[in-house]
Amino acid sequence: MTTLPRLLATMGDVAGVGPEIIAKGWPHLLDLCRPVVVGDPAWLERALVAVKSPARVQVVRETDEVSASAQIVPCLTASDQDLRHVLTGCVTAAAGRAAYDFLCKAIDLTMRRQADGIVTAPLHKEGLRAASLHYPGHTEILAERTGTRQFGMMLYADGLGVVHVTLHMGLREVFRHLTAEAILEKIRLLDGVMSKLNGRRPRIGVAALNPHASDGGLFGDDEEKIIGPAVARGQAEGLNASGPWPCDTLFVRARRGEFDGVVAMYHDQGHIAMKLLAGWRAVNISVGLPLVRTSVAHGTAYDIAGQGIADPTSLIEAVRVAARLAAHSASS
Amino acid sequence: MTTLPRLLATMGDVAGVGPEIIAKGWPHLLDLCRPVVVGDPAWLERALVAVKSPARVQVVRETDEVSASAQIVPCLTASDQDLRHVLTGCVTAAAGRAAYDFLCKAIDLTMRRQADGIVTAPLHKEGLRAASLHYPGHTEILAERTGTRQFGMMLYADGLGVVHVTLHMGLREVFRHLTAEAILEKIRLLDGVMSKLNGRRPRIGVAALNPHASDGGLFGDDEEKIIGPAVARGQAEGLNASGPWPCDTLFVRARRGEFDGVVAMYHDQGHIAMKLLAGWRAVNISVGLPLVRTSVAHGTAYDIAGQGIADPTSLIEAVRVAARLAAHSASS
Repeated sequence: MTTLPRLLATMGDVAGVGPEIIAKGWPHLLDLCRPVVVGDPAWLERALVAVKSPARVQVVRETDEVSASAQIVPCLTASDQDLRHVLTGCVTAAAGRAAYDFLCKAIDLTMRRQADGIVTAPLHKEGLRAASLHYPGHTEILAERTGTRQFGMMLYADGLGVVHVTLHMGLREVFRHLTAEAILEKIRLLDGVMSKLNGRRPRIGVAALNPHASDGGLFGDDEEKIIGPAVARGQAEGLNASGPWPCDTLFVRARRGEFDGVVAMYHDQGHIAMKLLAGWRAVNISVGLPLVRTSVAHGTAYDIAGQGIADPTSLIEAVRVAARLAAHSASS
Repeated sequence: MTTLPRLLATMGDVAGVGPEIIAKGWPHLLDLCRPVVVGDPAWLERALVAVKSPARVQVVRETDEVSASAQIVPCLTASDQDLRHVLTGCVTAAAGRAAYDFLCKAIDLTMRRQADGIVTAPLHKEGLRAASLHYPGHTEILAERTGTRQFGMMLYADGLGVVHVTLHMGLREVFRHLTAEAILEKIRLLDGVMSKLNGRRPRIGVAALNPHASDGGLFGDDEEKIIGPAVARGQAEGLNASGPWPCDTLFVRARRGEFDGVVAMYHDQGHIAMKLLAGWRAVNISVGLPLVRTSVAHGTAYDIAGQGIADPTSLIEAVRVAARLAAHSASS
């Protein structure tokens, strides 16, 4: 029997849906990996009770201290923040700082090979900011802590991966970050990850920046000057890339199965499509990092947190994808 | 019995799917309006034969010359271009010029009150260009010929309308066209059209420009400086508008029924969503023009034209919407 990979599930902002999606998804996680929760044992125990789970938390100090099971949820205490006064659905510096601590602990353990990858529950940016942590999200923390300069965020669902050339920046800033080099790098990243996930070289559609892919130059020249040359260089390297394609029809074609991957030029281009296409099934994958990390593709959902109604599907899918990537990393 | 509105259906670029969607959709159009085709009788006859329609073309000189029926398709010859050598699926100056002529004829007839509105089949921009007609699309021709300066293009499907503040321009050009005044104007336009279509004041969600609606100023300030003030002014006028909302989740919420209308800041923002949400059901509505005009929301589909497999759903929906707007215009 092949050993399942050991994955760390970080609880994210405890005032959000993180604890309860881990609690609800737990039986499914056991089928996919050897999970260890990194977070706060008391909040996790509360979530297990709230979702009427038969499992109980067992606090551990090492990732391999106990075996995860339907009855036992191993949990590493990963922050010294006092979270007793945090209220569900409310931004606090304590929960923000704790979410950061959970992530850092998980990164350090994984970099030391005590786990095969990380799956993160959502954190809340306002919470991070309240704790004076000025990161736009998980990815930037991961990049900084692992000393990574070239990284990307990929959305994945139903066999389709979308990677973004630019991400957390104002739309006005996008243009100076769009270079043929940056686009080519993302084509390569997507090719690498999707080859692992789907087991074959992906057909990659590269999105245009301008409407109608500039309509032959009527609406801009980024397609001719930047994106087209990047696609051509990718093709010259043997990658199965094409474009630039008008992005509205590109996603319709991807849904039809014409593409396995899409390179989006900016955040909303990919996100509008994937939120509509996949909703709770979407998974967030960090690409370019020296470790395996996936994430749910939704936020903390403060409005419904604590009621036990949050859907764990995205977490389960994130674990499934991380397990697949970790297995591939181990064998390669 | 209320008289059905008289609507003109322009054939668009005859080398595309225009003729066949009119031919296939014909029985449905008769339920919704008194249709008259504006175009080329020979190409129309060919399309009727191709889709095995029992109807035959009757060439007319006036819109009220004969009654449309399951057997009779009244057609106004609207161009003196020789279209005999046009090949299906190929760009030609002749078909491009003819599509322009069809539209101009329909505009003139409608402005002279000889019809209640126009429904357009797709034209091909390359064809227009081959004929030295430098328009990005139908809407700009309509605006020019009717002397309209403030106009917009709205996508509509399943009770949801999306209007764009900027449309056919490069993404770099968007910023200087985004003013609070321009956004407010589009909120008002959307309110007016959707009130007619749905019979009640619409709940309008205004999209942000930047990812996460700038995340409190982290990724740009257009939300705070331009979009937010426009929404506030709309609210002060009594319009049911809110935002700016992050556009990826805005469309998910609109699909859930939280909004009847969305104001998108640029072409692809609205088009990515509506192509995925509605596909062939989407209809294009010109707003701000002194006449009723709707259109299919797809292109000429040269790749499948002439095979009789094109789906007439968008045309039928466009006629349905035009008929509703024309009835309202007549009664108001």
